[in-house]
Amino acid sequence: MPLEDKIIESGDCRLVCKNSIEDALVIEGSPNIGLIGNIVGWRVIEDLGLKEIGYIESKKLPPVAVLKEGKALHPFRMYGGDDIVLFLSDFLIPSDSVFDITNIIVEWVEKNNSREVITISSVLARGGAPKIVGAGNNDQSLKRFEKLGVPTLKSGIIAGLAGTLLTKCKTKNIPASCIFAEVISPYPDPRAAANVIELLNKIADIEVDPQPLLDEAKKIESRLKRLAEKVQKQQQKEPELPIYL
Amino acid sequence: MPLEDKIIESGDCRLVCKNSIEDALVIEGSPNIGLIGNIVGWRVIEDLGLKEIGYIESKKLPPVAVLKEGKALHPFRMYGGDDIVLFLSDFLIPSDSVFDITNIIVEWVEKNNSREVITISSVLARGGAPKIVGAGNNDQSLKRFEKLGVPTLKSGIIAGLAGTLLTKCKTKNIPASCIFAEVISPYPDPRAAANVIELLNKIADIEVDPQPLLDEAKKIESRLKRLAEKVQKQQQKEPELPIYL
Amino acid sequence: MPLEDKIIESGDCRLVCKNSIEDALVIEGSPNIGLIGNIVGWRVIEDLGLKEIGYIESKKLPPVAVLKEGKALHPFRMYGGDDIVLFLSDFLIPSDSVFDITNIIVEWVEKNNSREVITISSVLARGGAPKIVGAGNNDQSLKRFEKLGVPTLKSGIIAGLAGTLLTKCKTKNIPASCIFAEVISPYPDPRAAANVIELLNKIADIEVDPQPLLDEAKKIESRLKRLAEKVQKQQQKEPELPIYL
Amino acid sequence: MPLEDKIIESGDCRLVCKNSIEDALVIEGSPNIGLIGNIVGWRVIEDLGLKEIGYIESKKLPPVAVLKEGKALHPFRMYGGDDIVLFLSDFLIPSDSVFDITNIIVEWVEKNNSREVITISSVLARGGAPKIVGAGNNDQSLKRFEKLGVPTLKSGIIAGLAGTLLTKCKTKNIPASCIFAEVISPYPDPRAAANVIELLNKIADIEVDPQPLLDEAKKIESRLKRLAEKVQKQQQKEPELPIYL
Amino acid sequence: MPLEDKIIESGDCRLVCKNSIEDALVIEGSPNIGLIGNIVGWRVIEDLGLKEIGYIESKKLPPVAVLKEGKALHPFRMYGGDDIVLFLSDFLIPSDSVFDITNIIVEWVEKNNSREVITISSVLARGGAPKIVGAGNNDQSLKRFEKLGVPTLKSGIIAGLAGTLLTKCKTKNIPASCIFAEVISPYPDPRAAANVIELLNKIADIEVDPQPLLDEAKKIESRLKRLAEKVQKQQQKEPELPIYL
Repeated sequence: MPLEDKIIESGDCRLVCKNSIEDALVIEGSPNIGLIGNIVGWRVIEDLGLKEIGYIESKKLPPVAVLKEGKALHPFRMYGGDDIVLFLSDFLIPSDSVFDITNIIVEWVEKNNSREVITISSVLARGGAPKIVGAGNNDQSLKRFEKLGVPTLKSGIIAGLAGTLLTKCKTKNIPASCIFAEVISPYPDPRAAANVIELLNKIADIEVDPQPLLDEAKKIESRLKRLAEKVQKQQQKEPELPIYL
Repeated sequence: MPLEDKIIESGDCRLVCKNSIEDALVIEGSPNIGLIGNIVGWRVIEDLGLKEIGYIESKKLPPVAVLKEGKALHPFRMYGGDDIVLFLSDFLIPSDSVFDITNIIVEWVEKNNSREVITISSVLARGGAPKIVGAGNNDQSLKRFEKLGVPTLKSGIIAGLAGTLLTKCKTKNIPASCIFAEVISPYPDPRAAANVIELLNKIADIEVDPQPLLDEAKKIESRLKRLAEKVQKQQQKEPELPIYL
Repeated sequence: MPLEDKIIESGDCRLVCKNSIEDALVIEGSPNIGLIGNIVGWRVIEDLGLKEIGYIESKKLPPVAVLKEGKALHPFRMYGGDDIVLFLSDFLIPSDSVFDITNIIVEWVEKNNSREVITISSVLARGGAPKIVGAGNNDQSLKRFEKLGVPTLKSGIIAGLAGTLLTKCKTKNIPASCIFAEVISPYPDPRAAANVIELLNKIADIEVDPQPLLDEAKKIESRLKRLAEKVQKQQQKEPELPIYL
Repeated sequence: MPLEDKIIESGDCRLVCKNSIEDALVIEGSPNIGLIGNIVGWRVIEDLGLKEIGYIESKKLPPVAVLKEGKALHPFRMYGGDDIVLFLSDFLIPSDSVFDITNIIVEWVEKNNSREVITISSVLARGGAPKIVGAGNNDQSLKRFEKLGVPTLKSGIIAGLAGTLLTKCKTKNIPASCIFAEVISPYPDPRAAANVIELLNKIADIEVDPQPLLDEAKKIESRLKRLAEKVQKQQQKEPELPIYL
Repeated sequence: MPLEDKIIESGDCRLVCKNSIEDALVIEGSPNIGLIGNIVGWRVIEDLGLKEIGYIESKKLPPVAVLKEGKALHPFRMYGGDDIVLFLSDFLIPSDSVFDITNIIVEWVEKNNSREVITISSVLARGGAPKIVGAGNNDQSLKRFEKLGVPTLKSGIIAGLAGTLLTKCKTKNIPASCIFAEVISPYPDPRAAANVIELLNKIADIEVDPQPLLDEAKKIESRLKRLAEKVQKQQQKEPELPIYL
């Protein structure tokens, strides 16, 4: 017998999800500078074999299908495993939808008694060796970072879902942490994503292999090197729209 | 006795349609790069003798009448034959209406137990010989493309109705496929449309003659050649608004 | 005893009209390129002695009063005679109000069993002698243009009220036609308006004298000629806002 | 015992007013070119000793307090005397609020059986000696201007509250007139405001002294003269925001 | 037993606050030119040991978390002590939310019988020694400034919450005052904030130590001096986004 859809709504946004998963670790992966959240999300899905269990839709989200091996996917999906849940958007979430999507996710988290929320954010490094830092909405979260030798972000702001999930969870007494990756360019950065995964493994007690991302990083780096050499020789034309990759 | 109008609504959008057509193949043709969807749609109507059976209206769609042999048509119409239904827009669908129009079409499809949805999209070719590729929302769709020797679009996005119909149909277990044409310019491209029709004939088991489009393509190409020669001699003036063609 | 106001509403728009006029010819005159619809409308009112019988108001229409001999008028008015009704706007109708105003007018037309709707549109001529063409929403309309030797607009689009009235009337089986004037500049063109009136007289069986418009055209043309001579001698200053004419 | 607030609402706008004033002359003073309406309004309040009796608020009006001798005022206030009422805005009324504010004022006027409405508008003079002209929504109004030797504005438009009050009042059979001042610059013009007051005194049978405005005009003119001399000598810096005057 | 949340709503905005605090002095601190309101607010919290007791949320406020020692805070918070309440925003309040947030705060003030509201605003000084000035919504407020030798702002406008709280409170007979700091640059100005605190101490009968701000001002000033020297030597690069401070 197929499971019935459960629907959670806030404003124009709607989460449609068949499954209940109690006591889960909830990870939020949406694109940010360097696409860290999104890259980490895809790696987690592949390595832990998570299944698509729902999606978030809204007339304010971009009206597109994402293709994966020729098959159409919602641009904002929800994945689940035994005790892990991942919210994955393949698009930058429009600023005027963050409030409602935060409400929806936190309502799901409450109803399913999730044990913790982890969000992922990123920032352009100001120089020096790029590193990983942490932030949280409770003292335990900060102590855990401290034990692992991860510095916390003393002041500043966390924009988007990664930030609003922390504050909204706090009002519901749900522990939430944010892993912040420094990146050295706005382009997809699998090396920084691999670093996030290494910390995520430790704090969430999971085992996701970062190696494929490190391999990809090496490929990108050597490709960029070759590209840089080429560019010096010819004039760059305007980038095409990324509709067909 | 005239049929009564049946109305399906979502948000600001409204489908008005008198007819029920069970078990139909549903084709979506709306303009995209190279106007492929629209050109294919008109050819299907003419060759299969489809009749206008409804229209989609909304205060968000452009407030215009389209003229066909001096007679005014709604800019977004629905056509039907024995077991085929076509949604045809003569205007680029505004991004903020795609969500609601997708809901409306899929609701009609559900109520009329349509057997399959086929959408048409296009992309500027990156070089090499322009070709036709496929995408779908289910494994059967992808296998069918494979059998016909049509490559599938491994990754990327499908924007607009062509994409959202695939994901929305998936949530309702309605099989849907997208035929993707590579085009070599943003201008109307009847040759690429003819290629789409050849594939559409095979996967939908219909017989639409692509020849008139190939003839038109030849005319356009020789006209463009002459134009190119002219342009080299005189300065191009600003294009007029396309109100009166 | 004063007549009570009858109100028809759609969205943000509202028609307030005291009178019922059965079996009327309904003319729509709103500004377009060359102000043809508006100029024709004013001439029809003056020559046929039509009386103001209502107005259309909306928070989306420009908040202004139009002055006529020192007296304030609504910017979008409805006029009536024995069996003729005219909708006259002195302002370009905002695109996002066309849908609702079309609904309102067609509802009035239905309730009053009007016999026919005629709209007026215009387009910048592409060269050659400017001419008058027709379009319609039914075969009788097109045959009538043909009998009078008026060519019909084979393809293209009709924007705004002039177009949407045709398609909306069609869904209600109300015959509607559009008279399309080619104009040679975007400025008020009384000569083209006079041509529209000559055709309107024939198809609507009314007698409106176009002569005052032809006289005005001559005056404008000789004024423009003098102006052109002046301009060649002195630098043109920026045009003032047309608040006080 | 304090009077209870009476509230009139339309759309997002709200008039809050404690008092009823029967058979009043209602004057509308809101800023326009040369700030005429506003300057006239302040002079009327001071000379006739009008008291603040209400205000108009809306989330669409600018969120500010206006300071008068250190005390905060609503930016859009209503003043009253024995048989005179003044609506005074210190800010240009946003175009999308004019419709609702007009509804509110006219509803108050109806409920309080005001005897007449007078609005004030202005226009940049096209040359020649700047003068005062009139417009109205009824024949009596125009005849009164004629008797006083005041020319009426034959054609053109009156934008904003000054115009829409005329047309809305007309639909309710409330006599309304507009005094139109020609000004020679967009800056505050107390001399033109003084001229408006002289006419207002005659048509409204009140006695407001225009002399303070004439004195101010002289000061401004001599200040401008000195400024012009200075400017010729030094480069003008960018104007500061007028937050603290 | 945890306190239940009390919710006050207006439009899209919502105040969530557990506590009731009778007869409090209410201070509003939101960023303005020189960040005065915000700097004063943080100093008041630290020195008086105020606790976070609520927050204001809205889909129109920026979707971010503010970090304080690694822990996530709502961007618009409410703090309380024995008989003092502070509303503190770390972001410029969007203009279209000021109306609703004013309603919310004043409703809280009414329900809790607060004794007085003090807002903080600022303006770029026009030259001369920057000073502190006052404004109010009642005569007692102005007399108190006078007694303390603080000049009042004769005319001008107060924008944002600082202004609208004054007018809204006036309609509810709640005494409110505004302390206006002149600043000499748009950058954070702890020296001006210290001056505001000195006056706030006097009029609110509290004791907040301005010394840390004066120390910070000295540091900033010497840092700016060094920076100015550097800048003269090298070209300034574009400022980075202040996401990670």
